[in-house]
Amino acid sequence: MAEANADAAPAYGTDPWTLAAEERFRAMFGSNAAAYFVFNGTAANILGVSLLLRRYEAIICAETAHLNVDECGAAESLLGSKLLTVRAADGKLTPDLVAQRLGGRRDVHRAQPRVVAISQVTELGTCYRIEELRKLGDFCRANDLFVYMDGARLANAVARLDCSPAELAEHVDVLSFGGTKNGAAAAEAVIVMRPELGADAPYLRKQQLQLASKMRFLSAQFLALLDDALWLRNARHANAMARRLAQAVAEIPGVEVCYPVESNAVFASLDPRHIERLQRDWEFYVWDSGDHTVRWMTSFETTKADVDAFAAAIGAAAG
Amino acid sequence: MAEANADAAPAYGTDPWTLAAEERFRAMFGSNAAAYFVFNGTAANILGVSLLLRRYEAIICAETAHLNVDECGAAESLLGSKLLTVRAADGKLTPDLVAQRLGGRRDVHRAQPRVVAISQVTELGTCYRIEELRKLGDFCRANDLFVYMDGARLANAVARLDCSPAELAEHVDVLSFGGTKNGAAAAEAVIVMRPELGADAPYLRKQQLQLASKMRFLSAQFLALLDDALWLRNARHANAMARRLAQAVAEIPGVEVCYPVESNAVFASLDPRHIERLQRDWEFYVWDSGDHTVRWMTSFETTKADVDAFAAAIGAAAG
Amino acid sequence: MAEANADAAPAYGTDPWTLAAEERFRAMFGSNAAAYFVFNGTAANILGVSLLLRRYEAIICAETAHLNVDECGAAESLLGSKLLTVRAADGKLTPDLVAQRLGGRRDVHRAQPRVVAISQVTELGTCYRIEELRKLGDFCRANDLFVYMDGARLANAVARLDCSPAELAEHVDVLSFGGTKNGAAAAEAVIVMRPELGADAPYLRKQQLQLASKMRFLSAQFLALLDDALWLRNARHANAMARRLAQAVAEIPGVEVCYPVESNAVFASLDPRHIERLQRDWEFYVWDSGDHTVRWMTSFETTKADVDAFAAAIGAAAG
Amino acid sequence: MAEANADAAPAYGTDPWTLAAEERFRAMFGSNAAAYFVFNGTAANILGVSLLLRRYEAIICAETAHLNVDECGAAESLLGSKLLTVRAADGKLTPDLVAQRLGGRRDVHRAQPRVVAISQVTELGTCYRIEELRKLGDFCRANDLFVYMDGARLANAVARLDCSPAELAEHVDVLSFGGTKNGAAAAEAVIVMRPELGADAPYLRKQQLQLASKMRFLSAQFLALLDDALWLRNARHANAMARRLAQAVAEIPGVEVCYPVESNAVFASLDPRHIERLQRDWEFYVWDSGDHTVRWMTSFETTKADVDAFAAAIGAAAG
Repeated sequence: MAEANADAAPAYGTDPWTLAAEERFRAMFGSNAAAYFVFNGTAANILGVSLLLRRYEAIICAETAHLNVDECGAAESLLGSKLLTVRAADGKLTPDLVAQRLGGRRDVHRAQPRVVAISQVTELGTCYRIEELRKLGDFCRANDLFVYMDGARLANAVARLDCSPAELAEHVDVLSFGGTKNGAAAAEAVIVMRPELGADAPYLRKQQLQLASKMRFLSAQFLALLDDALWLRNARHANAMARRLAQAVAEIPGVEVCYPVESNAVFASLDPRHIERLQRDWEFYVWDSGDHTVRWMTSFETTKADVDAFAAAIGAAAG
Repeated sequence: MAEANADAAPAYGTDPWTLAAEERFRAMFGSNAAAYFVFNGTAANILGVSLLLRRYEAIICAETAHLNVDECGAAESLLGSKLLTVRAADGKLTPDLVAQRLGGRRDVHRAQPRVVAISQVTELGTCYRIEELRKLGDFCRANDLFVYMDGARLANAVARLDCSPAELAEHVDVLSFGGTKNGAAAAEAVIVMRPELGADAPYLRKQQLQLASKMRFLSAQFLALLDDALWLRNARHANAMARRLAQAVAEIPGVEVCYPVESNAVFASLDPRHIERLQRDWEFYVWDSGDHTVRWMTSFETTKADVDAFAAAIGAAAG
Repeated sequence: MAEANADAAPAYGTDPWTLAAEERFRAMFGSNAAAYFVFNGTAANILGVSLLLRRYEAIICAETAHLNVDECGAAESLLGSKLLTVRAADGKLTPDLVAQRLGGRRDVHRAQPRVVAISQVTELGTCYRIEELRKLGDFCRANDLFVYMDGARLANAVARLDCSPAELAEHVDVLSFGGTKNGAAAAEAVIVMRPELGADAPYLRKQQLQLASKMRFLSAQFLALLDDALWLRNARHANAMARRLAQAVAEIPGVEVCYPVESNAVFASLDPRHIERLQRDWEFYVWDSGDHTVRWMTSFETTKADVDAFAAAIGAAAG
Repeated sequence: MAEANADAAPAYGTDPWTLAAEERFRAMFGSNAAAYFVFNGTAANILGVSLLLRRYEAIICAETAHLNVDECGAAESLLGSKLLTVRAADGKLTPDLVAQRLGGRRDVHRAQPRVVAISQVTELGTCYRIEELRKLGDFCRANDLFVYMDGARLANAVARLDCSPAELAEHVDVLSFGGTKNGAAAAEAVIVMRPELGADAPYLRKQQLQLASKMRFLSAQFLALLDDALWLRNARHANAMARRLAQAVAEIPGVEVCYPVESNAVFASLDPRHIERLQRDWEFYVWDSGDHTVRWMTSFETTKADVDAFAAAIGAAAG
């Protein structure tokens, strides 16, 4: 970013940093793919689904989806789109779960499902396997549904599956590629996999308050992340730290890990008094106060020492 | 309506029919109540909740609510409002069910619950008792929530409970009073129980495409319905016909009534082959093709002979 | 309507009245045309333009358009659409006036013009000639613009031009056909001239609060109007009464007719004290209090005696 | 920003950088004022007006307002708000111009004017004097209207008027304070002058896609700008460069400066062939191709040498 700041440059995305970053994304996702940079993950989701929906069409998503619970109703308020939520034990949609919400097609009384929105990795830290994505994608194509993938933590999925980003994107129509949770200051990309879906994107990005006049500052963040695979190294490290934490707490009595640890999140349930004690010194979310579940996140900055100290603190609190 | 047609009259609701109909509703719901006439039930719901919601506020309702499933996403599209749905076995909300959706208050990432929307009678034909409405109303007031009541079939509830409309309305802030399902051609009323909630209503009714230039035709329908308690006689008759049907089918093996029959609807499950046979001659909805549930509605026009003939047909189909 | 009331009928527009009325409109506008019935003129305009607009597209219309000034911001609020207004002396758009608002195409900072909305007859009582419609239509087609025509008073244009409705509709993509101002209680039709533009119409009509469960009451109004050309006789009569009024006031000193009287409206300017005196006994709008313009409307119910008495009153007030 | 990057920090605006920047804005605008940081100028405008408008209320603004022409219809699309535009010769609103759009108050057919949106400095480079702001503010208060001030270039107004920011803000309800055009990478602030207007701001900022998880990067930009009055020195310099340019071109025959040069913009009209020649080497906007007006902007980075070289080039092109 310091480099991008050195001199004046053309505005609104015609600068060399932006052209270079766009090219990097084409190299990553295929020559038909186009990248649109925005400021945060909520904006990426809203821009992404807005490319795929008409006024009376709805989004099928998991109850736990960021799009549903963590965007202050932006999909409804800014786009007017209905969300048809599905209870998914591990945060992952399947053809069967999607099929539950397909009743009422061609019934004018019902909002018509058009987009299936998934998160990779999910908000519960689980990761769709390629085979699961393929099945879901095939089902959606056969049922006239688009797939949008919230990739705020796509890097963690790539690290987990040891695949290429393109292999993940093959089964979806539009996705986001997160920068902010992986080292950037504030930068996300919306990747449109087929040109015919992207015609409205430049207008909608502007209308949705995401066009940076000094786009080079967004682009420079991606150049830095994509350079030398920093994004992937960051994600691999974060995933490894979560596994280390999961292993450490597995041996602590009274602490139960809730979901498979497949990225950089560990969900666990423990006695609420132990949670309280732990929160005096450590900052983390209580995910569900009903069943005493907490969420512990690791990042590119988390060290082994951090993990070990935290695990020791859990042991002490729960001991 | 023929009377209202006889001569020209002032437009947009200053005619004598409208003034008289408005007065009739004040007599029914109290001198603080104001009635706004609209064309259909979906419009009544949208106008009603729009009086109570800011841009980032949400509606808690049952999954089965008309507002959720039968309005083609109007609440989301026209108002931008998020619906927080609750699974309610008999279509009725309770304080406990509402409390499930109150997590995340004062968390800026979450749409903020503000309106609890109930239907009286519900879409499953069940009827809130006065005591249930009181408890829900008290809970909502204590939790800074408004109550909106979809009264598309309020008449059936009044008939069922043998109470006054005002007793039902006492525990809510805004409600609708249905005409169309109870004999009118196309007329619903939105009743605003406190003047401070109604200041925006005239503008929002116009903006929401519900201002009739010849309002007298809407008003005349209400005058006819309210005259001599026709609305209540119609509803009592419809309820009685549903009870008659429920009793008749209770004795037919293979037919199971699903919910308490408390208004003019009978839900039953039966063998899908029997449903198919029955639909050759009779028109009704299959409510849920998964569990083979059907919905049979009675109305002010249904005769005892209709019921008996239909019950006989069910017996024959299921026999 | 009394006939439609005689018995129960299928809901939501599959009844025989609706099928017959739809057929009548196809006979009028061509076999590719489809009619969608709604409750009022504002709703017809909103449904009509909503078929033609994406999220970032705008409507070019005259400043005086009903869509702009008399719909409480419904186009903006319900559809999110920007209006690009044009000052048009007589309420009529021309290619030159439209061209004024075409700057900024393909500039992402600008809402993109897509629909040109005209009124026939206009809100100022003027009437586009067929040749004017053809030129405007040709210009719009050449510039990738749709034409929507607000036909709340289309009948008056047909009466004025002595043409067929199809001749007026030939140069537009979607239009409305007004019933309410021409004798109906509350009924307007949206006519979609090409099937590919109408795919969303059934859903959007429902979402926009315009689907009547007892559609037959809307349809019956059109059957009555279209029968025996009642709609056209009504409009011819109203136009004739306006001409009679214009001729009568032409001779009154101090009263100046403002626009060509080409339908059922007479706009005139006169001394504000004379306006005030006249309004004691007669009801009409002061159109513009700045330049003391008033609007006098005639209808199918106006009699020669009404006109003559009113003209006499004007003479007395201005005398 | 490099400093803010050095270590992890609490998310969503509870970090020390944000608290410090918020405090700086309170020091600048008064202890009742609250600052909300967003990513760009369009977002600041949308958040600002959204705090002041109900669903059926409208914004009065100049035709030239950024809000009207340069935001791809965001006010209409995201907020559903109607803009009532006014032709203002120099881009500045006056009580008389505002009064032109106040017809139809309390008429339910009309969107109701509630916010008067002005830009300081305006999009034409002109600057409201304090006395003009006072008169407009008094008029608005007396007429139940809020004032929103787009301060994307507020710094240039402060530099021009040699006043404090608080003196400018005294006559408005909500304003923006621009960072991006004055040296920041991407940072604007919405300043809410009275606490009762800001209750919804945290939710609406999130919903409008403007909540940065790493808010410290936005805040750090403001800390840098506000430190040692860098923002004001930048603006003074930019203004001085525009004056230098205006003086230089005043002597070039065939080039006419269009508006008073009161900030960092010079508008001029010149022969279209001269414009074309000049654009081969220099980048600037043709403001209006109809009357051959161009816009030349200066910034904190513009040097005297830049100005002199550009003026020489104009002279050569026009010579």
